[in-house]
Amino acid sequence: MYIGQVAGTVVATIKHPFFGGKKLLLVARLDLAGQVTAKYDIAVDMMRAGVGDRVLVLDEGSSARQVCDVEPWGPVRAVIVAVIDHVELAQEVR
Amino acid sequence: MYIGQVAGTVVATIKHPFFGGKKLLLVARLDLAGQVTAKYDIAVDMMRAGVGDRVLVLDEGSSARQVCDVEPWGPVRAVIVAVIDHVELAQEVR
Amino acid sequence: MYIGQVAGTVVATIKHPFFGGKKLLLVARLDLAGQVTAKYDIAVDMMRAGVGDRVLVLDEGSSARQVCDVEPWGPVRAVIVAVIDHVELAQEVR
Amino acid sequence: MYIGQVAGTVVATIKHPFFGGKKLLLVARLDLAGQVTAKYDIAVDMMRAGVGDRVLVLDEGSSARQVCDVEPWGPVRAVIVAVIDHVELAQEVR
Amino acid sequence: MYIGQVAGTVVATIKHPFFGGKKLLLVARLDLAGQVTAKYDIAVDMMRAGVGDRVLVLDEGSSARQVCDVEPWGPVRAVIVAVIDHVELAQEVR
Repeated sequence: MYIGQVAGTVVATIKHPFFGGKKLLLVARLDLAGQVTAKYDIAVDMMRAGVGDRVLVLDEGSSARQVCDVEPWGPVRAVIVAVIDHVELAQEVR
Repeated sequence: MYIGQVAGTVVATIKHPFFGGKKLLLVARLDLAGQVTAKYDIAVDMMRAGVGDRVLVLDEGSSARQVCDVEPWGPVRAVIVAVIDHVELAQEVR
Repeated sequence: MYIGQVAGTVVATIKHPFFGGKKLLLVARLDLAGQVTAKYDIAVDMMRAGVGDRVLVLDEGSSARQVCDVEPWGPVRAVIVAVIDHVELAQEVR
Repeated sequence: MYIGQVAGTVVATIKHPFFGGKKLLLVARLDLAGQVTAKYDIAVDMMRAGVGDRVLVLDEGSSARQVCDVEPWGPVRAVIVAVIDHVELAQEVR
Repeated sequence: MYIGQVAGTVVATIKHPFFGGKKLLLVARLDLAGQVTAKYDIAVDMMRAGVGDRVLVLDEGSSARQVCDVEPWGPVRAVIVAVIDHVELAQEVR
């Protein structure tokens, strides 16, 4: 699980029925210092996250299906499970 | 899940029976700016995607089997689950 | 499984019910020499680890659910499974 | 799933019983241009692939067990599922 | 699955009960040329491997639980499944 920042939205007309009505967000992965990295995921949003929000991304199939309330059926891997208020970083290991 | 661009087709005569009649596409992974990266996947196409299309790639075994309608049986991990129209990127996090 | 160092805490008000009452730690991955790297995970702590502790991180959904005593239900992937006393490194392969 | 080139064979006397009689191949991962990279997998071969062959590698536990006809039992993750004849790369995305 | 070299031992007093009595080895990942890389795993050893041994590491939860004879219960992901005698590398792809 990692911290990401919502960077945009993916729009697709031709898609698997599972994704009908689901919001697909482009989430950039943040590094330990909170900066945007080159890594990202397309994640299903079940937390009503908005662009710019820092979120907790969970990237595992079974977990994603549970959060979408579709386990065991549902082709999905990455979901947003929390909107992060802040991260308390210890000085000594920064 | 990530955004890829269909870059080619894989042709194989000797293959596991599961792949008989299935289209195997070479999909290059795109970065946050929409540029082709060095990463790629060989994905089964169930969305009739064509070369050059930007697609949503789902890389998880159970999901892939569901999209291929073969769960729980079927040796497969990566599938195309959507053809992307466009990505709305927020200015502030670009 | 890898060795990490607890670097901070993640605070989130809006989150999936599963994470209510659970401590979410930011764990920096250590390299072979014991130095902090740029990689990290947000892991659920079931071992009462504290900031600065070196811990064993297990990053697999089913294992994480077992450690949280919620298998098969529970959207979670990374957990702390041990607090490390020390690592005995062999001279010849260092 | 990715394209690899068979680069060698792994010989082991002390091994888990599952691997008795199974051919363990060292498969180098190829990049989009078909060049060998630094990445590799040790994969079980069920397609009678030979050294130098370009192969399709599937790196997922459940799939690997199915291809080895041992699902749900069998400690294995990477298998060769096809011997590739050729890859048709599109000019415009190369 | 990849080739690693046993580089050390992890000692932990506070740990999940599953790891009681199990040997946790630090295994450095080797590259195609057999050199130690910066990557490593903490793996459970069921093959009585010793420091300096070259081993086959299997990094998948279900496989790891099977090798530890605890499937479906047991929080574990990486295990040593063979002690490697030698690797026969083909000249043409080296």
